[in-house]
Formats: sequence, C-alpha cells, structure tokens
Amino acid sequence: MKKEIYLDNAATTKALPEVTTAVVDALENNYANPSSLHRFGLKSENILKRSRKIVADYLGVKAKEIIFCSGGTESNNLAIRGITKAYKNRGRHLITSPIEHSSVAELFKALEKEGWQVDQVQVDQRGHVDLKHLRSLITEETLLVSIMQVNNELGTIQPTKEIAEIIKEENPLSFFHVDGVQAFGKIYSNLSQWQVDLYSISGHKIHGPKGVGALYIKKGTNLKPLIYGGGQERNLRSGTENIPAIAGLGEAVKKLPQLSAAKNVDKNLAQKKEYFLNSLQEIEEVIVNSPAAGAPHIINFSLPGITGETMLHALESQGIYISTGSACSSRKKGSRIINACGLSQKKSESALRVSLNRTITNDDLDYFIKTLKEQINFLKLF
Amino acid sequence: MKKEIYLDNAATTKALPEVTTAVVDALENNYANPSSLHRFGLKSENILKRSRKIVADYLGVKAKEIIFCSGGTESNNLAIRGITKAYKNRGRHLITSPIEHSSVAELFKALEKEGWQVDQVQVDQRGHVDLKHLRSLITEETLLVSIMQVNNELGTIQPTKEIAEIIKEENPLSFFHVDGVQAFGKIYSNLSQWQVDLYSISGHKIHGPKGVGALYIKKGTNLKPLIYGGGQERNLRSGTENIPAIAGLGEAVKKLPQLSAAKNVDKNLAQKKEYFLNSLQEIEEVIVNSPAAGAPHIINFSLPGITGETMLHALESQGIYISTGSACSSRKKGSRIINACGLSQKKSESALRVSLNRTITNDDLDYFIKTLKEQINFLKLF
Repeated sequence: MKKEIYLDNAATTKALPEVTTAVVDALENNYANPSSLHRFGLKSENILKRSRKIVADYLGVKAKEIIFCSGGTESNNLAIRGITKAYKNRGRHLITSPIEHSSVAELFKALEKEGWQVDQVQVDQRGHVDLKHLRSLITEETLLVSIMQVNNELGTIQPTKEIAEIIKEENPLSFFHVDGVQAFGKIYSNLSQWQVDLYSISGHKIHGPKGVGALYIKKGTNLKPLIYGGGQERNLRSGTENIPAIAGLGEAVKKLPQLSAAKNVDKNLAQKKEYFLNSLQEIEEVIVNSPAAGAPHIINFSLPGITGETMLHALESQGIYISTGSACSSRKKGSRIINACGLSQKKSESALRVSLNRTITNDDLDYFIKTLKEQINFLKLF
Repeated sequence: MKKEIYLDNAATTKALPEVTTAVVDALENNYANPSSLHRFGLKSENILKRSRKIVADYLGVKAKEIIFCSGGTESNNLAIRGITKAYKNRGRHLITSPIEHSSVAELFKALEKEGWQVDQVQVDQRGHVDLKHLRSLITEETLLVSIMQVNNELGTIQPTKEIAEIIKEENPLSFFHVDGVQAFGKIYSNLSQWQVDLYSISGHKIHGPKGVGALYIKKGTNLKPLIYGGGQERNLRSGTENIPAIAGLGEAVKKLPQLSAAKNVDKNLAQKKEYFLNSLQEIEEVIVNSPAAGAPHIINFSLPGITGETMLHALESQGIYISTGSACSSRKKGSRIINACGLSQKKSESALRVSLNRTITNDDLDYFIKTLKEQINFLKLF
C-alpha cells in the first residue's frame, strides 16, 4: 500500500479509538433521551454530566458554565449572536479582527448589515493584533470584542490574557469572546483567571467526534439562544442532546495534555514542529508565514510562483494531504487571512498549511520534506 | 438478567447496527473535512452526496432540495426563523397549532415577542386541526403556516395535503412548513406532489444517529441561515459537516419501509399497534387519548387517578421504559398537548405514551399489558 500521510489536522482530525468506543457505546447501550424520566434516560444524563465536568475541569471552570452544541461554528455563533440579542440596548459597537475564522467573520458581516457598528483591530504581518489600536477602538458603546486565541491558518497566538485586561480596563461592561477552537488542548488557557466571558471549542479538532462543540459562558453572562425548543442546555441550546458525540468529546478531552502556566504548550507537538521547521527552512523556495512563537501544530508557508492548489494536488499524488488554508474557505482564491495580514498576493496564492497531530512521526515529516523538494523541482520545469 | 423493554421510541431510538457501522467507518477511515481540496476530503464529500440522495429519494424530491443540520429541533428552527428573516417584508402574520413540538411552539413564542402576529388554529380533542378555522385565519399578511404531520404525544395525523391546498388557495404567496419528525418513515408523504415548502426530519427518531437532521427546502424557497460561517450546505448551515452522523442517517433511511399512496403506513408497526390496543382497551381503567387512525407507533392513554409519573416509575421498576408525553417537556406538570386538546386535567396528569419500534414483539407487548394491570391494582390500594 502506498504511504498516506495526513497533515491537515487543523481542518479536522481522526477520532481516537477511545472516542469511537464511547460513541459506539452510547449508540448501542445508552441511547435513551436524557430528558426521559426513566432511569434509562438518567444513564444518558449521567454521560452528559460526566463529559461536562471533564471539559469544565480541563478549562478550569465550573461544569454549569459549559454548554454543549453542535460544533465550533455554532459555539462561535451562539456566543456572538447570543450577546447581541441579550444586551442589544447596552451598546451597538462590536470589535473583531480581520483574521477570524469564517464562523466569526461572516457573522460579523451579517451583524453589520443588521445595523451594528463593527470595527476591525489591525494585525501585523504575522497576524498579531495591535494592542494599542485595540485599546483606541473601545468605547462606552462597545458591547462585545471577539478575537480568536490561535489563528487557524497561521497558528498565530494572541495574548488573550492581555487583550482581556485591555478590554475590561477600557469598558468593564463589555464582553470578550474567544474562539478557542484551534487553541484548545494545544496551548494553555486559564479561563477562571483571565477576564474571558465566552470561549468556544470544537470536538473534531482534538480527535473527538464531529458534530459537537462547547461554549464556556462565565457565570453572570446572559445569552439569548439561537435555537428554541425543549430547553436543553439551560435553555441555551434546545434539541435532544447528542449523547454519543458528547461522550466522545469527553474521552478526547481526557486524552489532552495537561498544560499549565509553566508548561503552556503541547511539548510533543512543539518538538515535531521544531524538527519540521528546521528541514523546511532549508528549502530555498520556502517562505515561512507563521510566526516563530506560533501554535505547535500549524505551519504556514509560501512557495512564490507555484499556486497552493497546484502543490496541494502534487503532494496528494504522493499520498500527502495538506491544505492551502482554512478548509472552510477552500474554494476561494488566495487566503483571506494572509491577505488581511498585508502579505503579497503572490504569497497568499502560493500559501500552504501543514498541521500536525501527536501521531505524526519524524519519518513522516522527512517523507514530506523529501516529496516537497521533488515536487518543487518538478513544477519549476513548467 | 431482568427483562427490559424500551417503549419510548418517540423520544429516541436505538441506532441500527448498519448505522453504527457507518458512523464508525466515517470516524476511523473517512474522517477528512469534505471542504478539504484533497481526494481524502472528496471521499467525505461523496458520503455527504450519497446520504443526501438517499434522503431526497425517500422523500421523492431532488438532492439539492435537502440540507443537513444538527437535528429536528434545528431543522424546525431553521425553516421557520429562516423564512421570517428572508421575507420579513412580505407579511407579519404566522399561523401554527397549539399542539406543535416545543421546537416549533417555543420559537413562535419568541417570534411573537419580537412583534410577529401569531394565530393558533383550533384542534379537536384528538388533536386534529380544524380546517375551516385554518382557512378563516389566512390573510394577505400570512407569511408562514407551520403544522406538524404527526403529533408526538397523541400520534394524530394531520391531513397535510389538504392543509397545503387550503393555504395556497387562500394565499399562494405564503409558505407551508411541516414538522415531519414523527411522521418520516412511519406514514407516507409526497412532497413533490403536495404543496409543502419546508419539511423537517430527525435522524434519531428512525434508528439513525443523534445530532443529525435534515430540512427539505422546495426549489425557489429562500431562507436566511441561523448559523453563519464557511458556507456549507448552500450557505444555509455553516460548520464542518457531521459526516459520521450523516453517513448513519443515510443507512437508517435505507432501512425505512417503502411507503406509497396505496401503502401509506408502516404495516409492521400498524399490526403491532392493533395487537397492543386490543389488549390495552380491555383494561377497565384505561382511556385511550390517541385517535383511532393515528400514527402506527404512538399510543397515548390515561389512567385517571394515577399520575403519569407514578405509573412511569412503577413500570420502570419492572424494566419497562415509557414516557408521560414529550421527553422535551418531561419536567412540566401535565401535558401541554393534551391540555390544548381540551381534555381534562385529570386525563392530562395521568397520561402515558407508549411508542413502538419494529423490533418490539407481541411477547413484549403482552408483558407490558400484564405488568400494567399489576401496577394499576397495586397503585389503586393507596
């Protein structure tokens, strides 16, 4: 069999065996509706409680501050839309960054059309938000700031703790939402200490199931729901709870590395990234777009003169799966994120994203580098 | 091991083995993001296409008229909220029934608070909507009518085809949404022939996975999304597609009985229901609330003098799992649905719902009847 190497883990990941086992157990043995009054329903409710506690413990928050929903996109939408619906009389000004995931960016576009005033904080060429500019944007009218923790294309880590401090200093009544989808389990967060009000995570980015995500909602923060019905998840997310996926999410979180202020990054991934970058940077044609101190699983680089899609398919022919950027924006020309960072169109159109997981070996990475060199030489002939 | 009989299939169902297999295969082997440009992503996209075609074929509609979402509740919300957002200038009047599932009823309550005018069509004691009253309610301002096909507590079947005709005769510009969650796969629908614009289904009511549903959107009907982001599902439902659950839904639909105008009900279930009702009606204390010509899987009855919850737990002690009504409203006193039908509070508080599936045997039903009699006699002593 031909070698196959999946290096698109920022798009989605393979479920861990323990995750699949939990999903199957819930499908086959614990399939009752947790809202049912009988004890079979209670078993499902216990799975729900258990996963909620696992997620809350990992984030250092209380179980009742976590609600489950259908994924990272819904979690981001619920947080942002939920605040704008619940506090629409407090202020009409929102702040975000130009490099958010489409589930944040597209929602802000819609809110702008609905009459909200939306400002974009400036970012540098590596995607770091300009903290002074952020401070200058915050007014008495600012209801919500939404800035992701780790950028999904570049791996840029924002100083989330400092951003929170700036926001609360300038306007203590404003809310801070963080899209934590690419950060969760990769770098340390301390939600109980940081002044973050809302934090979104997704199951399928951490070897959990697809179709499940969670939102941390700091005690005292009110949201209005996107979806009405039976009142599940404290009335914030109606619909029969997806117990199999929630059970799987719990298992995935249990397997995440224990991070702390001292050990604030997944060391396993960080070592792989370092190994990979050392070889990658030796290739003359490569320009690395990711910041040096970025997330440990994302490496973005450009090969000016070769479009990203061309190289993606060339590598695919050798069994290597990577991406040109966000899977959610894959059909668009160039990268919205890289364009927003002010990099050239040439860099944007030739950008590639390699994203690692914990099972990737140095051999896999060597094979990638070798194949990349071959394909660069091959494509340069044309 | 003690006998365990699950008779709460209107709340949720056990996944079929084929469904679990499909879920596991997607989790383990076809886990790529369908938006990824590489051929591994294409495999996921093919699963998506295949399931979409299976669902569309079963409903007799075109694949592009089906979009997937996270479940029946979201499907109902997307349909109703989506129309009110897309056509808010066409009319401000909405019509529904007082016996809708909470995912419809609670949304209409929210819309009413937001300034929409909502009328409720009258229903009789068995839950049938009054067609004359419906006709009288429709005006030039009527934007949307939402009336379920099968009631989830009583099993009442509405004359969906006739309702559609009345709506379109009175106001051809109004839309008709049908919550088909309890009808799908149990009774025949002909969406391409009937004048239904939107039809909601759920995976976990038909032995498919939880966390997945679909919405039929008739060609030419525009909706605005609830959830913004990467633009999946024709921009109507952003978020990485839940391929494992969508694959499982496809398998579940493949196993549904083939129904037609001539064979318009699941005969297997209908025979079981008849067998069950014959024994049930022999019990002196039983008052059947479901209509004679109801759906083949739902039997609602009251035992005046014994609260539903008391009997539910008495039966549970003997390994039998049923419900007092909708799982999604299980914590409330009495049944909103039965109250809305004008039945007495005594009937409402003592109501029980038995809901069948295709694997239930006559022996199981005999055991239920025997146990019910024993528990009635036991509880009557107090």
